[in-house]
Amino acid sequence: MFSAQAARVLRAQRIETPSWAYGNSGTRFKVFPREGVPRTPQEKIDDAAKVHELTGVAPSLALHIPWDRVPDFAELRRYAADRGIALGAINPNVFQDDEYRYGSVCAPDPGVRRKAIDHLLECVEIGVATGSKVLSVWLADGTNYAGQDDIRARQDRITEALTEVHDAMPRDMRLLLEYKLFEPHFYTMDVPDWGTSFAQCLRIGERAQVLVDTGHHAPGTNIEFIVAVLLREGRLGGFHFNSRNYADDDLMVGAADPFQLFRIMHEIIGGGGLEPGGGVELMLDQCHNLEPSVPAMIRSVMNVQEATAKALLVDRAALASAQADGDLLAANAVVTDAFNTDVRPLLGALREEMGRHPDPVAAYRESGYQQRIEAERGQGGMSWGA
Amino acid sequence: MFSAQAARVLRAQRIETPSWAYGNSGTRFKVFPREGVPRTPQEKIDDAAKVHELTGVAPSLALHIPWDRVPDFAELRRYAADRGIALGAINPNVFQDDEYRYGSVCAPDPGVRRKAIDHLLECVEIGVATGSKVLSVWLADGTNYAGQDDIRARQDRITEALTEVHDAMPRDMRLLLEYKLFEPHFYTMDVPDWGTSFAQCLRIGERAQVLVDTGHHAPGTNIEFIVAVLLREGRLGGFHFNSRNYADDDLMVGAADPFQLFRIMHEIIGGGGLEPGGGVELMLDQCHNLEPSVPAMIRSVMNVQEATAKALLVDRAALASAQADGDLLAANAVVTDAFNTDVRPLLGALREEMGRHPDPVAAYRESGYQQRIEAERGQGGMSWGA
Amino acid sequence: MFSAQAARVLRAQRIETPSWAYGNSGTRFKVFPREGVPRTPQEKIDDAAKVHELTGVAPSLALHIPWDRVPDFAELRRYAADRGIALGAINPNVFQDDEYRYGSVCAPDPGVRRKAIDHLLECVEIGVATGSKVLSVWLADGTNYAGQDDIRARQDRITEALTEVHDAMPRDMRLLLEYKLFEPHFYTMDVPDWGTSFAQCLRIGERAQVLVDTGHHAPGTNIEFIVAVLLREGRLGGFHFNSRNYADDDLMVGAADPFQLFRIMHEIIGGGGLEPGGGVELMLDQCHNLEPSVPAMIRSVMNVQEATAKALLVDRAALASAQADGDLLAANAVVTDAFNTDVRPLLGALREEMGRHPDPVAAYRESGYQQRIEAERGQGGMSWGA
Amino acid sequence: MFSAQAARVLRAQRIETPSWAYGNSGTRFKVFPREGVPRTPQEKIDDAAKVHELTGVAPSLALHIPWDRVPDFAELRRYAADRGIALGAINPNVFQDDEYRYGSVCAPDPGVRRKAIDHLLECVEIGVATGSKVLSVWLADGTNYAGQDDIRARQDRITEALTEVHDAMPRDMRLLLEYKLFEPHFYTMDVPDWGTSFAQCLRIGERAQVLVDTGHHAPGTNIEFIVAVLLREGRLGGFHFNSRNYADDDLMVGAADPFQLFRIMHEIIGGGGLEPGGGVELMLDQCHNLEPSVPAMIRSVMNVQEATAKALLVDRAALASAQADGDLLAANAVVTDAFNTDVRPLLGALREEMGRHPDPVAAYRESGYQQRIEAERGQGGMSWGA
Repeated sequence: MFSAQAARVLRAQRIETPSWAYGNSGTRFKVFPREGVPRTPQEKIDDAAKVHELTGVAPSLALHIPWDRVPDFAELRRYAADRGIALGAINPNVFQDDEYRYGSVCAPDPGVRRKAIDHLLECVEIGVATGSKVLSVWLADGTNYAGQDDIRARQDRITEALTEVHDAMPRDMRLLLEYKLFEPHFYTMDVPDWGTSFAQCLRIGERAQVLVDTGHHAPGTNIEFIVAVLLREGRLGGFHFNSRNYADDDLMVGAADPFQLFRIMHEIIGGGGLEPGGGVELMLDQCHNLEPSVPAMIRSVMNVQEATAKALLVDRAALASAQADGDLLAANAVVTDAFNTDVRPLLGALREEMGRHPDPVAAYRESGYQQRIEAERGQGGMSWGA
Repeated sequence: MFSAQAARVLRAQRIETPSWAYGNSGTRFKVFPREGVPRTPQEKIDDAAKVHELTGVAPSLALHIPWDRVPDFAELRRYAADRGIALGAINPNVFQDDEYRYGSVCAPDPGVRRKAIDHLLECVEIGVATGSKVLSVWLADGTNYAGQDDIRARQDRITEALTEVHDAMPRDMRLLLEYKLFEPHFYTMDVPDWGTSFAQCLRIGERAQVLVDTGHHAPGTNIEFIVAVLLREGRLGGFHFNSRNYADDDLMVGAADPFQLFRIMHEIIGGGGLEPGGGVELMLDQCHNLEPSVPAMIRSVMNVQEATAKALLVDRAALASAQADGDLLAANAVVTDAFNTDVRPLLGALREEMGRHPDPVAAYRESGYQQRIEAERGQGGMSWGA
Repeated sequence: MFSAQAARVLRAQRIETPSWAYGNSGTRFKVFPREGVPRTPQEKIDDAAKVHELTGVAPSLALHIPWDRVPDFAELRRYAADRGIALGAINPNVFQDDEYRYGSVCAPDPGVRRKAIDHLLECVEIGVATGSKVLSVWLADGTNYAGQDDIRARQDRITEALTEVHDAMPRDMRLLLEYKLFEPHFYTMDVPDWGTSFAQCLRIGERAQVLVDTGHHAPGTNIEFIVAVLLREGRLGGFHFNSRNYADDDLMVGAADPFQLFRIMHEIIGGGGLEPGGGVELMLDQCHNLEPSVPAMIRSVMNVQEATAKALLVDRAALASAQADGDLLAANAVVTDAFNTDVRPLLGALREEMGRHPDPVAAYRESGYQQRIEAERGQGGMSWGA
Repeated sequence: MFSAQAARVLRAQRIETPSWAYGNSGTRFKVFPREGVPRTPQEKIDDAAKVHELTGVAPSLALHIPWDRVPDFAELRRYAADRGIALGAINPNVFQDDEYRYGSVCAPDPGVRRKAIDHLLECVEIGVATGSKVLSVWLADGTNYAGQDDIRARQDRITEALTEVHDAMPRDMRLLLEYKLFEPHFYTMDVPDWGTSFAQCLRIGERAQVLVDTGHHAPGTNIEFIVAVLLREGRLGGFHFNSRNYADDDLMVGAADPFQLFRIMHEIIGGGGLEPGGGVELMLDQCHNLEPSVPAMIRSVMNVQEATAKALLVDRAALASAQADGDLLAANAVVTDAFNTDVRPLLGALREEMGRHPDPVAAYRESGYQQRIEAERGQGGMSWGA
C-alpha cells in the first residue's frame, strides 16, 4: 500500500512526452517508416492526448522547432488545451540547416552564430505564445578532428550566445542546457558533460539549469550521483528520459536498466525534486525506430511511474538508520526491497481511483486507436526534420 | 632508411578505398551535402583513380550494391581498368529495404530471409562480373529490446544463409564476415564481436573469414590482439579501416589514435599478413561528414602507409632478444622508437622513386582537381542509399 | 505460482560458493580486515554449510589452491561431507609466486611454464582427491606494454600447456577456461575475451569449455548473447557470478543490475543449461570488501535464485508467438512482466516446503552465528594469499 | 629547430616525480618485489636526484604521508636540497587506516571525519616544513552498494572538511582536489569527475583547484577538453600523469596513447599553462609493477618532454588561419604535422646545450646506477603503505 504522501506524489506526477517521438525515426542507416504516424503537429497532439487519457500523468507535449512550426502557435495551444494537453518545453533546432556544418552558436563564422541565436530568440517568443516555461537547448556543436577549431573560443561563444538568450526570456522561463558525450560530432562536443553545462549555467544566469539526458553519458557514469550533486547546487532543471545499452540509443525509458531508473527517481525524491515547486522536469526523449509510438509511449510513461512508485516505497527512516549504523547490507536491502516490490497492482488501483482503466496497455489495445490511425494516416507520417 | 625488404613491402602494399566514402554521409541528425561529390559510380571511379594516381598504393575500389548498381558491371570494370583501377570487394546491402526492419538473413520471416540471401547471391554474380575476389558481408541485423527475438535461432539462420552463399561462390572468392558491437540495433547485434564471426566462419566454410572494422569494438578492446589471434587461426580476412573516439565514428583512419594503427600494422606484419598471398585485405571504410572526400582519402591512405612504414622499421631481432631477456623497457623502446621515427621523408623518397610527387597532399592542391569537380558536379552528389 | 516444472528446477538448482569469498579481500589500496573471518579451510566450510543450511541451494564449495591447501584433501572432503557440503571446482593459482611476473603458462621462460603446468597438474590430482569434476583455470597472464612479449607465441604456449593438463584429467573432469579483459595486466591479457577462450578450447580438447565471469567484459558487452552463442556451440562450462558497475568490481551478484542477471538466467534456461546434465556450473566469485561475508553470500545466493525464478516465469509460448508475429512490444512485455513479478513470497513458500525458514536473511540474524564467529575468530582471518 | 620561445619553455619545464613510484607496487592480486627499491625516503630522494641529473627537468619530488614520514621534515628538505631536489606536493593518505572503511572526510562517523581532517591539517604543516606549495588531496571515499550512504550528505561533509583545511593553509599554498571515476569503491566515488571537483572547489575557496589524473576518467572522455575548460575557469591546478588502456592502469605516461598526451600539452600551452606563473603542476603518478622504476621514470619524464616539444612545434598562426577558413583538413594537418615530427634529435641537442648527455636512457645504462642500487638495497625496498 502506498502511504498517503506517496499516493499524493504519484497523482501529482507529470511526465512530458516529446512531439518528435510520435514521428518516424531511425539511424543513419535507415528510417523504417511506420503506419499511422502523425502527419501534422495537431495529430501529434492527438496522440499525446491518447497517452494522457490512458495514463493520467502525461498532460503536456514538448515541441521541436521547426519540426512543429505552425502559422499560429496560440491556435495550436488552444487545439491542445481542448484535448487536455498543455504545450511544454520548446526545443530549438540548431543542427539541421546547412550552415551549421561547423557549429551553431559555436561556429567560427559570426553570421552563423547570429542565425542560431536568432532562432533561439524566436523560440523564446514561441514559448511565450504556447505558454511554455522551459527552453530546452541542445547544442549539436562540436568537432571531428584535433585542431579543427579552438575549444576555448567555442566555450566563450556559448556563454555569449546563451546569456543573450537567457536575458531575453521572461522571468518565469528557464533555459535548460543539455549535454551529450558524442554524436553528431566525434572528437569534441562543445557541451559534453554535466560539468561543462554546469560551468556554463553559472555564467549564463540564475535561470539556466542543467538538463540530464539519461543516454548522453560515458560508459560507467553514475547518473544518480549527478542528480544528487546538481540538486544540491540548485541547478538540476530536468530530464530527457530514455534508455541505452551502448550510446545514445534512445530506447524506451526503463527498458535497458530498470534498477538505474529507480535509483535516479530515488535521488530525485531524496533531493526534493518531486515536491511542489521542485522544478525538476520529467520529459521523455526517445526514438521508436521499430515499434509503434503510441503504445511505446504508454509503456514508457508507465515505466517512469513504476520506478517512481518503487522509489516512494523506500523506507527512508530505516535507510537513514542503517546508514548511520554502518550496516551496509541492511541499507542496501531497504533500497532493493522497494525495487523488488511489484507495484503494478498498486498503480492499477490508483488509476481506478483516478477514474481510469487500471491497465493502460490493455485499454489501448481495446480502444482500436492504433487501427484507426493506421487507416487514416497510412505511411505518410512525419519524420525528424519534416 | 628502409631496408630493401621494407621498401619492397611498401611498394607492393595495396589499400582499397570504398566507393561510398566518396559520397555524402552524415549522422541521423543531418547529412551536410558537400560540393563536388560524385553523381555516378563512374565519377567515384574517377575520384579513386585520382587518389591512386597521387599515392600509388590505392589501385582498387570497393563497391556497394545497390548504391553502385549499373546496368552492365563488365562495362564498369572496363571503365575502371582504363583509369588504372580494379573493382574490389563487393559489399551487399541488406539493411535499407523496408522489409529488413526485423533483420535480413536473421529475420523471423522466411520470405525476408530469402530476399536477403538472393541479394547476397546476386552480389556473388556481380563479383564474378567485376573480377572481385571478396564478398564483404555486414549484417545490420539485431534487436532493440530483450525478448524481441530468439538469439540462438537467429544464429542458426545466419549459418544456414551464409553457408548457401559461401557454397555458391567461385573457388577463388572469399566471404568476409564483419562484426559490430552496436548500431543500428541497440540490444543485440547478431554478429557483435569477433568471436561470433569466428564461430560462424568455422561452420560456414573454409573461405569464410573474419573482417575487422577498427571502429566496431567495445571501449578498451585491444584490436591488435584480435589481429594476432585471427592470423594464428588462419581466419583474418581483412580490415575496414577508420578511426574512432567513441563508437563507430568512421573518422579518417589514423586520426584518432595513430599509435594504435601502428600496433595493428605491427601485428599484421608479424603474422605474415603483408607477405605475398598473406590474404589480409586492407580496405578503408570511413565517412567524410565535414571534409572533402578526395583529399581526406589521400590523407587516409597516407596514414595507413606511414603506420606500415613505421611498423616495418621495428627491429624485430632486437625485439625478440629483449623479450627473451625479460627486458620490458628495452622491448617497449624498440617498438616506440620505430613509432617515433618520422617516416614522411622516407616515404616521399619512395614515391619519387616510383615516379610520383613526394607529397600527395600538395600535389592534389596543385592539381586543381577539387575546383574542377566542384564546378562540374555542384552539390548534387550521391549520398548513402542513392 | 510456479509451475510444477519451475518448482522442480528451483529445487534442483545448485549454486556453488567460493572459499576465498569468506576471507578478507580488498583493493590494491587497502584490505579492511573483518571480524569473524575463517582462519582455516575448515572454517570456510563451516560458513558455507551455514549458507547452505539457510538457502538450501548452495551445497558445494569451490577451493583455491594453494590458499586452501591442506595436508590431506580426502580428510577435508570428509569434513565437508559431514556438514552437507561437497567440494566443488578446484581453482589453481598461477599468479602469486614471484616467478610469475611475466606470466605463468605464457611466460617466455620455459622453467616458469613448467612450474605453472606442474601446479595445474597437481590441482587435477587434488580434484580427484576432493571429488571435484571441474578445474577452473584463470590465467592472470598478460603484458603491460606494447612489445613486451609476442602475443601469438603466448597463445601457442597456452595451447601446449592446457592440452597437457586436459589430457591428464580423468574422463569425468572438465577444464573451464576463464577470460578477463584486463587486470592484473593492462596492455594485453592472454585470454581477454570469450572468443580467445573458445578458440583455445577448440584446440585443447572436448572437455575444455568457456567460463564466463560476469565482471570480466568490456563496457557494453551483452553477456546473455555470449551465453546463447556458447550454449549453441556446446562450450559453455559455467559462470563466476558477481556484479560490477565499472570493471571487475566483484560486488554481490545481482546488486548492480538485477535485470541483466535475469536476462542471463533466461538465456541459460532457454539453452537447456539448467536441465539435468545441462553442464552449466553456477558458481559465485565475489569480494566482500566492506560487508560481512556470510550474510552477503546468503543474499547473493538468493539473488541468483530470484533471477532464476523470474526467468522461469517467462511465458515462453507467448514469447515465441509474439516473436513470430513481429510484435516487439508484446514480446518485450512477456519478458519484463516476469521480471517485474515479486517472486520473494513464492520462494519463501518453496523454502518452507523444503523444510527451511522462508526468509534466510532473518533466519541468519536470529541464528546468532555472526556473533559467534566474531567472538571465536576475532580479526585474525584469512585473506587472499594466506 | 625549436623557436627561441619553445626552447625557453622546454628549458624551464618542471616535471615532478612521485616518491611512491620508486617503491614496489602491484595489483590486488600480487606485488612483485623488485631489486634495488628504496628502503627509506632518503633513498627515494637519491633516485629522484638521479632522474633529474639525467633529464634536467625533474627537480622536485612529491611526498606521500605517512609513507614518507620522517622525524624531521626540515632535515629531509635539506637532504633533498643537497642533491638538487626540492620537496614538492604533499599527498595525504586518508584511505589506509582501518577506520576509513566507510570513508574519511565523508564517513558517517564524525570521529572518523575528525581524524581525517586532522591528518590533512598535519599535512599542511608538513608542507610548510618542506617548503611545498601544493596539497594534493585524493579522497578514496565512496560506497559499493546503492543505499549504503547518503550521496548528498557526503558532499556536504567534503565541503565542510576541505574548507577547514583550505582556510588553514598559508596564502601561497594551493589545495588540489583530485577526482576518480572508480576504485577503491565501485558504486559511487565521492569525487568521481571533474564537475564534482570543480563544484566543490568553488565552495571551498579560491586556492582550491582541480587535479586531473589522466587515468581517472570514464572510457571515451576527452581529457584535453577538460583541460581547456578548467583553464578557462582558472581552476586547473595540475596533473597526475600516467597512462591507461582500461581503468586506472597507472602505466608510464605516454606509453598507451602518445597522441593524447600531445593533445593535452597542446591545450595546456594554448591556455597559457606553461607560461611563468601558469600554475599548472605537471606531476607524474604511476606504478612500475614490472619494470625497474628509475629508468621507467626517466622514460616517463622524456615522454612528457617529447609531447611538450611537439606541442610547441604546432604552428599556431597557421592553425588559427585554417580554423578561421573552416579548412578542417589543413587545421588537422597543422596539429598532426607537429606530432609526426621526430623531436628526439632536437631534445638531444637541447640537453647537450644544458650540459647533459643527449640520451638519458643510454646515460643511465652507462652510469651503473641500477647495478649499484640492486647490490646495495637488495629486495627489501618500500612498498605502498610501508
